[in-house]
Amino acid sequence: MQFTSEKLLDDGVIEREFTLGEVPGILWAAESATAPTPLILVGHGGELQRMYPRVAGRARDAVAQGYAAATIELPGSGARPRSATADQARADLRQAIQAGEPVSDDIVDRLILPLVEQSVPEWQATIDALLELPEIEGPVGYSGGVISIGVRLAVVEPRIRAAVLFAGSYVPRGIIEQARQVDIPLHVLLQWDDEGNDRQMALDLFDAFGSKEKALNANMGGHTGVPDYAGDAANRFFARHLR
Amino acid sequence: MQFTSEKLLDDGVIEREFTLGEVPGILWAAESATAPTPLILVGHGGELQRMYPRVAGRARDAVAQGYAAATIELPGSGARPRSATADQARADLRQAIQAGEPVSDDIVDRLILPLVEQSVPEWQATIDALLELPEIEGPVGYSGGVISIGVRLAVVEPRIRAAVLFAGSYVPRGIIEQARQVDIPLHVLLQWDDEGNDRQMALDLFDAFGSKEKALNANMGGHTGVPDYAGDAANRFFARHLR
Repeated sequence: MQFTSEKLLDDGVIEREFTLGEVPGILWAAESATAPTPLILVGHGGELQRMYPRVAGRARDAVAQGYAAATIELPGSGARPRSATADQARADLRQAIQAGEPVSDDIVDRLILPLVEQSVPEWQATIDALLELPEIEGPVGYSGGVISIGVRLAVVEPRIRAAVLFAGSYVPRGIIEQARQVDIPLHVLLQWDDEGNDRQMALDLFDAFGSKEKALNANMGGHTGVPDYAGDAANRFFARHLR
Repeated sequence: MQFTSEKLLDDGVIEREFTLGEVPGILWAAESATAPTPLILVGHGGELQRMYPRVAGRARDAVAQGYAAATIELPGSGARPRSATADQARADLRQAIQAGEPVSDDIVDRLILPLVEQSVPEWQATIDALLELPEIEGPVGYSGGVISIGVRLAVVEPRIRAAVLFAGSYVPRGIIEQARQVDIPLHVLLQWDDEGNDRQMALDLFDAFGSKEKALNANMGGHTGVPDYAGDAANRFFARHLR
């Protein structure tokens, strides 16, 4: 892990850009931290530069709650090499939506599964590297989308002890099957009136999770309009499980 | 409103039984309250004596949060005169369930609608009487089941400013239609793994609510196993809207 920049933000958060192999990422931590903290991985839909305001907002909020927070760019997004397979799947998706056709399982699989296969080991390598820093000791939480990445990470990565998952993306059937193996505490956020979101898919996925503790918090406000009180509830969920 | 008993409980809560006409009820308030408080109506499924431990627990929790809390017996339950119509509907319901048949809209209507028609004016008369007491000034919140009663109250009673509704009972189609007229903030609790509960009905009802602010909190733990953190979230909802 190579740190490439360091910036002190006005809320006392140190923001450091890094690269891990070919993968760029950002780490946020409190300047004033005196003891090693748990870590929250901030998931997002790709293209970190475009997502920066929302991702950094969530990360700085996590730091204010006593965590370190980190994110990495997704495969095929931002400055990372594009994937012809993913581009084709995205074009097929757009075409299906424009034609008013249902989005086939085949398109969803081609869009999401390679992303999961490639990004999950990258998130795991990021955990490896971050837990070597003296200021971070874990446990680790995952927060955000792409929900399929969160599901796979929850299954394969024992260092992740709790996850706040954002419903909203296309979910392959195989991932829904895999959700039955998830047993960590989950807090699932669903924007009920998000029209770009397959609500039934989100409910099916929530139903499939094997976790003994799982909560679905559905709210109004559209795709990006998660109410402040829903963010507070997610913070309290992490406080119960990561402290 | 006639108070028939008064008892100081060990947490500093005064519990007073009352009758309002033929309707028995209970009021809980803080012994130490120095200013008039908002009021939370504690809804339940009927037969107050049997429900007492849970209802009183919720009420005393409300008092600890700074409210007065009150409940009344439902029509046809406890010592109140039984209704032949309701008894027949309940028998038909039991028979349908035992025969593994779907519960018809007709049974649900006969079971729930008379209960709503009779109990809603009783709850309103209770609000009238309680708001005349010097220690209570409103606003008023409704918390609990029978969810159809909560829906109707939210539509017809402007003094109710916010409601925590417990999904779980049979809901007539007409009540789901009426839910579109509800516009107060709602916090709906659903026990996801409650097998006695029609989950799809609960989701349809949640979808129908016209409220701009509505939240669905689904949790695990079975019919009576609402997790403590779900109760905390409901308390915070009322704090946002009744204080």
